[in-house]
Amino acid sequence: MTSVENQFIELMKEIKGYTEALALIHWDLRTKIPKKGMEQRAQVIGLLSEKIHQLNTSDQMKALIDQLKGVTKDPIIEKAVEVCEEEYNKSSKIPVEEFKAYVTLRSKSETVWQEARSENNFALLQPYLEELVNYNKKFATYWGYHANKYDGLLNNYEPGLTTSILDKVFDKLKHALSDLVKNIAESKIEVDASQLLHHFPKTDQEQFSLAILDKMGYDFDAGRLDETIHPFAIGINPKDVRVTTRYDENDFRTAIFGTIHEGGHALYEQNFDPDLYQTILANATSMGIHESQSLFWENFVGRSRHFWENHFDLFRKIAPVSFQSIPFESFFKAINEVKPSYIRIEADELTYSLHIIIRYELEKALINGDLDTKDLPEAWNQKMEDYLGIKPTNDQQGVLQDIHWAAGDFGYFPTYALGYMYAAQLNHKLKQDIDIEAIIKSGDFEPIKAWMTEHVHRHGKMKKPLEIINDVTGEGLNPDYLINYLTDKYKTIYKF
Amino acid sequence: MTSVENQFIELMKEIKGYTEALALIHWDLRTKIPKKGMEQRAQVIGLLSEKIHQLNTSDQMKALIDQLKGVTKDPIIEKAVEVCEEEYNKSSKIPVEEFKAYVTLRSKSETVWQEARSENNFALLQPYLEELVNYNKKFATYWGYHANKYDGLLNNYEPGLTTSILDKVFDKLKHALSDLVKNIAESKIEVDASQLLHHFPKTDQEQFSLAILDKMGYDFDAGRLDETIHPFAIGINPKDVRVTTRYDENDFRTAIFGTIHEGGHALYEQNFDPDLYQTILANATSMGIHESQSLFWENFVGRSRHFWENHFDLFRKIAPVSFQSIPFESFFKAINEVKPSYIRIEADELTYSLHIIIRYELEKALINGDLDTKDLPEAWNQKMEDYLGIKPTNDQQGVLQDIHWAAGDFGYFPTYALGYMYAAQLNHKLKQDIDIEAIIKSGDFEPIKAWMTEHVHRHGKMKKPLEIINDVTGEGLNPDYLINYLTDKYKTIYKF
Repeated sequence: MTSVENQFIELMKEIKGYTEALALIHWDLRTKIPKKGMEQRAQVIGLLSEKIHQLNTSDQMKALIDQLKGVTKDPIIEKAVEVCEEEYNKSSKIPVEEFKAYVTLRSKSETVWQEARSENNFALLQPYLEELVNYNKKFATYWGYHANKYDGLLNNYEPGLTTSILDKVFDKLKHALSDLVKNIAESKIEVDASQLLHHFPKTDQEQFSLAILDKMGYDFDAGRLDETIHPFAIGINPKDVRVTTRYDENDFRTAIFGTIHEGGHALYEQNFDPDLYQTILANATSMGIHESQSLFWENFVGRSRHFWENHFDLFRKIAPVSFQSIPFESFFKAINEVKPSYIRIEADELTYSLHIIIRYELEKALINGDLDTKDLPEAWNQKMEDYLGIKPTNDQQGVLQDIHWAAGDFGYFPTYALGYMYAAQLNHKLKQDIDIEAIIKSGDFEPIKAWMTEHVHRHGKMKKPLEIINDVTGEGLNPDYLINYLTDKYKTIYKF
Repeated sequence: MTSVENQFIELMKEIKGYTEALALIHWDLRTKIPKKGMEQRAQVIGLLSEKIHQLNTSDQMKALIDQLKGVTKDPIIEKAVEVCEEEYNKSSKIPVEEFKAYVTLRSKSETVWQEARSENNFALLQPYLEELVNYNKKFATYWGYHANKYDGLLNNYEPGLTTSILDKVFDKLKHALSDLVKNIAESKIEVDASQLLHHFPKTDQEQFSLAILDKMGYDFDAGRLDETIHPFAIGINPKDVRVTTRYDENDFRTAIFGTIHEGGHALYEQNFDPDLYQTILANATSMGIHESQSLFWENFVGRSRHFWENHFDLFRKIAPVSFQSIPFESFFKAINEVKPSYIRIEADELTYSLHIIIRYELEKALINGDLDTKDLPEAWNQKMEDYLGIKPTNDQQGVLQDIHWAAGDFGYFPTYALGYMYAAQLNHKLKQDIDIEAIIKSGDFEPIKAWMTEHVHRHGKMKKPLEIINDVTGEGLNPDYLINYLTDKYKTIYKF
């Protein structure tokens, strides 16, 4: 390694060190911290974030990028330089004072959102949203885009994806899903999820969750499971990747499917190629690919017939007596109930993407000046009626439900639906490569994890999202696999 | 506040920020981290420690000290400047390369100690001890001392204390304690601690521990209780002070008295004056004063007759049936059993200080060149026989039991015995000021905590240890209070 390469590695190590400290602080903030400790901790978060930002945009970073770009012979260094340059450009293009004002605004706006939501008063939030949209329009211009201003924002979360790709793909998906929703609404098949709502003690739910995480190949020597309010997985370092979950003693689905979902995220973070550890490439390539991993495990494995055919005995062994009389078929249908809901995070796997498409269409219109923030609630409610067949009667059920926009996150929502489509594409290829049903039956999902590690996990940021999808499946983003999967699955359940 | 004062505060805030991140990492390392995560985390500890060291010894720090010393009108800033200057001098006097070599040696030596202890082979450790002693001799010279080289080290942990003070005080204490040990050995009174060794489920021990912490005035909104192997309390910030404990289901004393002990440390860290928060003065003034707080609660409160007269009912309510037949008197004597032991951390409150005095005499001799590391085991064993009446038959039971010396900590041990003496002095004054028995009876120890906060906690580093003792008691370090307390207590129990 050359001396310049060494300096570059050392600089990345310093950035990674502060990032790791910050990740632990964030985990603690959402699992363990006593409430009075938060105020002071916020200052530490500020200090470390600023330090990372300084290093990412430092003259030293710029000089190292310039010295190494097109010169280094090491493919890992080459890629790391590329990623650091993207970060440098992104962070250094916004004038410092403007960014500080934006951070302050965003923090105020998040607080106002809490109030607006609890008071069901959109008018409180609207002026903040207006300002946040204006900032994001400017940022998109600073960062640059080709065809659509929204691309400048989207690229932060899903590099390589464009509005023109999404428009086509989401349009197809939207119509297919809306048709499925209608077919299901007209079905005569009774699916009754309320039969699942028996008391299920927390410790027993934990036991089942731990057993499934173990089968998935989650390494407990490099992670742990804790309780939280809003579940997440976090890679503090590649050998310390923690899962969190929430236990609802009256609805076991929250913890069980939530843990499998976060476990999918965690497997990604636990399985980067060790050769990448000393660089910033030992990170997820995009939010969409991250979500493909969690959704693959939650739905394509965790809600599949094969999974439950082979784990229903274990479930019954752990579950209280009140669950013992539920017949398998009834249980399986119940955990796959489709029911349009106002709230995104309560949506089933079929209607979920429709919630996302609504948000995508609205935020794209906001950024392009085709929609005024004042008109958001009405536009939201109309789209809910058009795509899902239900119209919110208040903004708590509608536009006030998510924090994303109030936190300035525009361009993030599409990654959830991309995760579904990527997952379906990966699932399709996986089934061609290995006998997934036999593996699920065996109770040890290691070969599934190994396939995902080979094709997705290990690459970290060495490949862009669409490069991964192309390399594995031989094609780009294609909604047909998700549409076909959902059609087949729900035709069987709802018999239409 | 002047602009220079502001810069000084900002610099301290940065140091405090990294220190807080480091404290959370240390808590996590001993309570939650998965084992594979440690290797990478060690690098983050290194990074943050180096950053703190850089700032403490920076040209900016030196310049601010020089500009503010003797100039600032703010008494808090004035004191903070004094403490920062001590730190600056301490850290900058050792040549950088020498310190790095020492850190590496210390880290190796700790590993060798593990091996030496498990193999009962002092010869393995001896060459490392030899080198560590030599380094510490040099450090003492760099840091400077008046009468005795050992003072240069002692001052790190207990500013203001000297070998000449300790020699007198420890000599008196040693003879008094040895006499008490002899009296007890000759006593006809039967004290049987084995009757306490019934199974006591962990969750029930936790329930009792939490109840007592609550009575002590520990603020659970600014802290939490977790399980660990080697218990500790840690102030991550003054509003996030965590207690840890260890549950031995076959000996409840470990958790109950351990939790009260760590709770005493935690009350100190939770109750610094908020005016000190933005400076480095919101920290314990010394290890000895810290230990006085834990020992006061553990022994002067937690092992007192009044405490158990008033909490035995609660204990019996929570304890399993096998404890119900133990009569109060028998129970009270059992938790105050005196029995010379080879191992310091298993010692009772009477013999504990003898263990410390042995270590003090030995390390003082090492640093002054009056004892060779090769002769340590024999010197150790001889002193054990002389002071405690029992002679270790191997080095696991003797010189290899503690990690301190292998970690380069010379001058630390005396603080444990100082803690006992300070606690006895504070306890004596407290009993004059308030009716401690009535307070314990009431079940709410808030007035005791309030007294300690007024006289000890709130001052942080605004006062040196002996200043605190002098201001509260009107005299300096005086072993008579501890001697009288132990004599009275054990005369009553062992009737000699």
